[in-house]
Amino acid sequence: MQLGLSVSDSDVSSFTPLVVLELADDTKAEAITWLLNRIRDKQQNGGAELLVNQLLFPAQDDQKPNPNVFVVGSTLQRLLNGAEDVGLFKEFQDGTMRGFTYANRESFNDFNGDGEGFLSDAECQYIIKHELDTLRAKNEEHVPGYPKLKLYPGKSVVRRLQSKGVLNQYFPLHNKEDLKRLSFSWYKKFKLSFQPLDDIRHYFGEGLALYFGFLEYFTFALVPMALIGIPYYLFDWEDYDKYVLFAVFNLVWSTVFLEVWKRCSATLAYGWGTLSRKKAFEEPRAGFHGALGFNPVTGREEPVYPSSKRQLRIYLVSVPFVLLCLYLSFYVMMVYFDMEFWAINIYNEDPSIATSILLFVPSIIYAVVIEIMNLLYRFAAEFLTDWENHRLESSFQNHLVLKVLVFNFVNCFASLFYIAFVMQDMVLLRQSLATLLITSQILNQVMEAFLPYWLQRRRNKKVHKRMRRLMGDKELPLLGQVKLETEMNTYLGTFDDYLEQFLLFGYVSLFSCVYPLAAVLVVLNNITEVYSDAFKMCHVFKRPFSEPATNIGVWQLAFETMSIIAVVTNCALIGLSPQVKAYFPESDTQLILIVVAIEHVLLAFKFILAFVIPDVPKHIQVNLAKLEFDSLEAFKKRKHMLQSAQAHLIMRGKNSFPQKTKDMFGIKY
Amino acid sequence: MQLGLSVSDSDVSSFTPLVVLELADDTKAEAITWLLNRIRDKQQNGGAELLVNQLLFPAQDDQKPNPNVFVVGSTLQRLLNGAEDVGLFKEFQDGTMRGFTYANRESFNDFNGDGEGFLSDAECQYIIKHELDTLRAKNEEHVPGYPKLKLYPGKSVVRRLQSKGVLNQYFPLHNKEDLKRLSFSWYKKFKLSFQPLDDIRHYFGEGLALYFGFLEYFTFALVPMALIGIPYYLFDWEDYDKYVLFAVFNLVWSTVFLEVWKRCSATLAYGWGTLSRKKAFEEPRAGFHGALGFNPVTGREEPVYPSSKRQLRIYLVSVPFVLLCLYLSFYVMMVYFDMEFWAINIYNEDPSIATSILLFVPSIIYAVVIEIMNLLYRFAAEFLTDWENHRLESSFQNHLVLKVLVFNFVNCFASLFYIAFVMQDMVLLRQSLATLLITSQILNQVMEAFLPYWLQRRRNKKVHKRMRRLMGDKELPLLGQVKLETEMNTYLGTFDDYLEQFLLFGYVSLFSCVYPLAAVLVVLNNITEVYSDAFKMCHVFKRPFSEPATNIGVWQLAFETMSIIAVVTNCALIGLSPQVKAYFPESDTQLILIVVAIEHVLLAFKFILAFVIPDVPKHIQVNLAKLEFDSLEAFKKRKHMLQSAQAHLIMRGKNSFPQKTKDMFGIKY
Repeated sequence: MQLGLSVSDSDVSSFTPLVVLELADDTKAEAITWLLNRIRDKQQNGGAELLVNQLLFPAQDDQKPNPNVFVVGSTLQRLLNGAEDVGLFKEFQDGTMRGFTYANRESFNDFNGDGEGFLSDAECQYIIKHELDTLRAKNEEHVPGYPKLKLYPGKSVVRRLQSKGVLNQYFPLHNKEDLKRLSFSWYKKFKLSFQPLDDIRHYFGEGLALYFGFLEYFTFALVPMALIGIPYYLFDWEDYDKYVLFAVFNLVWSTVFLEVWKRCSATLAYGWGTLSRKKAFEEPRAGFHGALGFNPVTGREEPVYPSSKRQLRIYLVSVPFVLLCLYLSFYVMMVYFDMEFWAINIYNEDPSIATSILLFVPSIIYAVVIEIMNLLYRFAAEFLTDWENHRLESSFQNHLVLKVLVFNFVNCFASLFYIAFVMQDMVLLRQSLATLLITSQILNQVMEAFLPYWLQRRRNKKVHKRMRRLMGDKELPLLGQVKLETEMNTYLGTFDDYLEQFLLFGYVSLFSCVYPLAAVLVVLNNITEVYSDAFKMCHVFKRPFSEPATNIGVWQLAFETMSIIAVVTNCALIGLSPQVKAYFPESDTQLILIVVAIEHVLLAFKFILAFVIPDVPKHIQVNLAKLEFDSLEAFKKRKHMLQSAQAHLIMRGKNSFPQKTKDMFGIKY
Repeated sequence: MQLGLSVSDSDVSSFTPLVVLELADDTKAEAITWLLNRIRDKQQNGGAELLVNQLLFPAQDDQKPNPNVFVVGSTLQRLLNGAEDVGLFKEFQDGTMRGFTYANRESFNDFNGDGEGFLSDAECQYIIKHELDTLRAKNEEHVPGYPKLKLYPGKSVVRRLQSKGVLNQYFPLHNKEDLKRLSFSWYKKFKLSFQPLDDIRHYFGEGLALYFGFLEYFTFALVPMALIGIPYYLFDWEDYDKYVLFAVFNLVWSTVFLEVWKRCSATLAYGWGTLSRKKAFEEPRAGFHGALGFNPVTGREEPVYPSSKRQLRIYLVSVPFVLLCLYLSFYVMMVYFDMEFWAINIYNEDPSIATSILLFVPSIIYAVVIEIMNLLYRFAAEFLTDWENHRLESSFQNHLVLKVLVFNFVNCFASLFYIAFVMQDMVLLRQSLATLLITSQILNQVMEAFLPYWLQRRRNKKVHKRMRRLMGDKELPLLGQVKLETEMNTYLGTFDDYLEQFLLFGYVSLFSCVYPLAAVLVVLNNITEVYSDAFKMCHVFKRPFSEPATNIGVWQLAFETMSIIAVVTNCALIGLSPQVKAYFPESDTQLILIVVAIEHVLLAFKFILAFVIPDVPKHIQVNLAKLEFDSLEAFKKRKHMLQSAQAHLIMRGKNSFPQKTKDMFGIKY
């Protein structure tokens, strides 16, 4: 064992390890040999042509270490070829972003010498992930040593191993140097500055960088609203006509905010080369199962699950389940109101400091219950969506997001709607809003950052101690790092982070005209959120694989829907305000008609605005058009040259290109 | 002259004439020679490589014929190459639609022998138009003989000649055989059947075929509504609760109707090969002018007009003008109401048959005035949009459509809205609606089909007589045909036809719940419309160039907007009905709130429905994905083969491909 350790450590130094592959510790030797061979095999033989080495951890007194941990790396040449395969966009010498091709590598900016440093770590890791994911079975009928792990030609080997629990996990390694530099510029220097989005993207990929970009943008966008909200609080402005002003501002703000973000996100995505990048053909998700059939698109063998069965599961099980949960949520809300009345009664009977504190207790309990219900529902929704057996990860995500959004929206806001429009009690609305907002913010920060951080610290210390005990003062940076990172929690994607921002956006845009301080609270929350999220990405979770993203996806739609609902609620709140009612002393009817008319005009205006503001800024549109034009021209030119070359050859009496060359270019004459 | 005639007529027989080119009769000889040379020149010299011949008409006693009429044709080989240039999609041997390439021609269905009959006439003419339009100036500084007709490298020669009046017109010739067959199956056999959409597309192109497809679809979709409407009329159902039923039906119908159409149109467009066809790079319109600059996309020299100047023209001139016209339209409406009251007063004073007829006179006059105002405004809008100097035909069209739609909508429906919601007089609303609808239908049919037909017949007879007088009994089919068609009116596109359908859709969906017979009238109108439109396309107008179209474009949006407005009006009409009011005897407020709530739910439902129903049917989505996947795979394979071939050559000590071959494929190593 000691021997193994030293061998592996010297072996590892032959290439930069980028990705860790952890197999189950009881994996059969023949399966391991087969997998490593497939990974190392040449591309023309269907292999991934990557470098891979075993890591051997020293045995410990209390537990046997997993012997089946591997690090994967690659030659530079292989990575550059892989960059072309995954369709990476890089800055061309004329300043536009173009699809990288190995043949034209010299024409890209920042490509020097043999291309060292041209690709970022995150890009290299993404390429390796892609190559591993698309490592396909050839003629093997099953994984060697596992007759039950069936394979068929074209099946992704890694997905199969993963879905059957042979492959525990694979994840990219942190780069300690870069991480140090990034975390310093990101959250360690205490001065007001923008986040280093390009560096974040460089280290964590576009998906995460877009999240942090959105978080920053959202927070900055809230500042004017917060500034307007502060005097309301300071001077105790209780006049509703001022609230009307605030509601109008709210309306315009929420529309413009989202439209401008689309442009910002397009600008970011263009600069990062993801805007015009074509989506690769999506593999079925790891958990997808069904009878073996033929994919109508690729013609390849793969599991097929009839869409009608999935629809049945969705409509007969998932939808009723969601409705049941919504009913439950309403029931809990009613219990909360009972508690609220009970507390108010006690306070009215005996108004003291103790009972006035008691007034807030039901709201706080309710806020905690809401968070717990959200959490439980989240698990149920994931289970159900998994059971619906979606073929693609993207459609799985969409169904999950939809389920979670609907429930969270109702669960968080139903009581506020009830107070605002059924009870029409603005004082209670303000109090409820404040309690819900503050409690959920505190809970979130604890659950999301401090708790994982604390657990991680405990674990780190234990691992450090163990390693030190074993090796004495020998330095084993790689082994130690891998050991540590293997045991870190996995970051499950930006879902929860966006969801939190979505709910905050709801609190701000739906009702903030009765509680203008909400914007201030959200700004404060988001400032700490940036720091705690940054910290958790750098030190609490495993490094995630970089995810190319063009925009914030389904969340843009979710935020836009929320802003439409905000128009309706704000108009209704304005209609309910005594100041506005005072203008129509004799008839409510006229007031309602006018409010409804204004609401319709505002909604129409919103749609027109969304239609008129181009989603992509002009200069980027020009660049995109240029790209398309150039590729069209190049195609024409090539075709023209082929034709004239052919004519030339025919004239000289030759038959034309040799058959092999013709086949090579996929051209038939 | 007589000599010229016979020469030209025998010349012409050497190829099938497809397109007629008419230059001004005083065009300088050197310009003609230059143009013909450029058209005939080889492609590699920048020519169009087409066949062109002069047509010489016999002189006539009363007037000199235009000597500068030419017919253009092409060799089959040139047309097939051109089909690849314009990116035509054809049915591949596996049943999918693929971009035609000359190299793979044998793999396309219906390609037999040398490809005779593979391309339809309309496609050939479209290809010739494309080749003429993209015939670009080389180093000429001006058109020979016209120092003022400046040219610059890359300028489309035909556009310049057209914009300066040297090229009067160019249009495709009818194919008498095909036309006969088409018109027989289309409108001459008097039996109920679907239109031969594929034949229409074959002869007139996709744009027009989609219009007729939409017309047919819309008419069929109206039939259930008409069937429901008839008993209302027959049994004189005046109960408003039945109207409520009708309004609800109306709502659901208008949403489903448009969503299903999207799928139908995608199916048609896929079958015709336009769905996945890439849009060619758009040339500036003929009328576009500006200082010579560089196009940021192509890098070519072309006129540049600052977008800020255009915005100024739009917002400072066009928008105020449109608003002024709207005000005028309101003013006319008010005059109409004065007339209406005056007529009612007369009737009330002396109720007789004469005065009861008088009741309808104001509506009829108003309907006629509306049509006249629409017509006048149409000219003004075209002038203004032209003056706004849009670079692209598509953006010109969009601005024109927007201007015309807004005005026509207000002009046609303002009085109905006023009667329905301000006066709340349902009897007058029904009467007004009926008069407006019937009058505008009659006027439209007359203006659109019978008047042009009558004019055309007179002209035809004159031309026939003249030709017969000149040539005696000599048969000169081509000369006669060209002479006739040159003098026919030009079909200005589907704009007016769609606009008419849009207004009819408005009459049906906005208010038909108070006048259910509207749907019946529209169905009757559309049945005659199919015939009269078919007739006018075949015999009244010049044959138009085929226009590839994927969908009905901006009209889909217009119809959808109308259906949203319809939800609002129908809900409001339901709220106004006495039956519904009877349920809430004590408070109007509650009624209004409920109606508003229902309206919001319906609107939300509409958006969700539009979101959930996929715009493209599943099987076509699969075919499209297949196409994309195949091209991706082919690209990978080609790249892989190139790499291994290169490696092979290097191994054998050769440098790799000869430089010329490498350049040819645009590949740099």
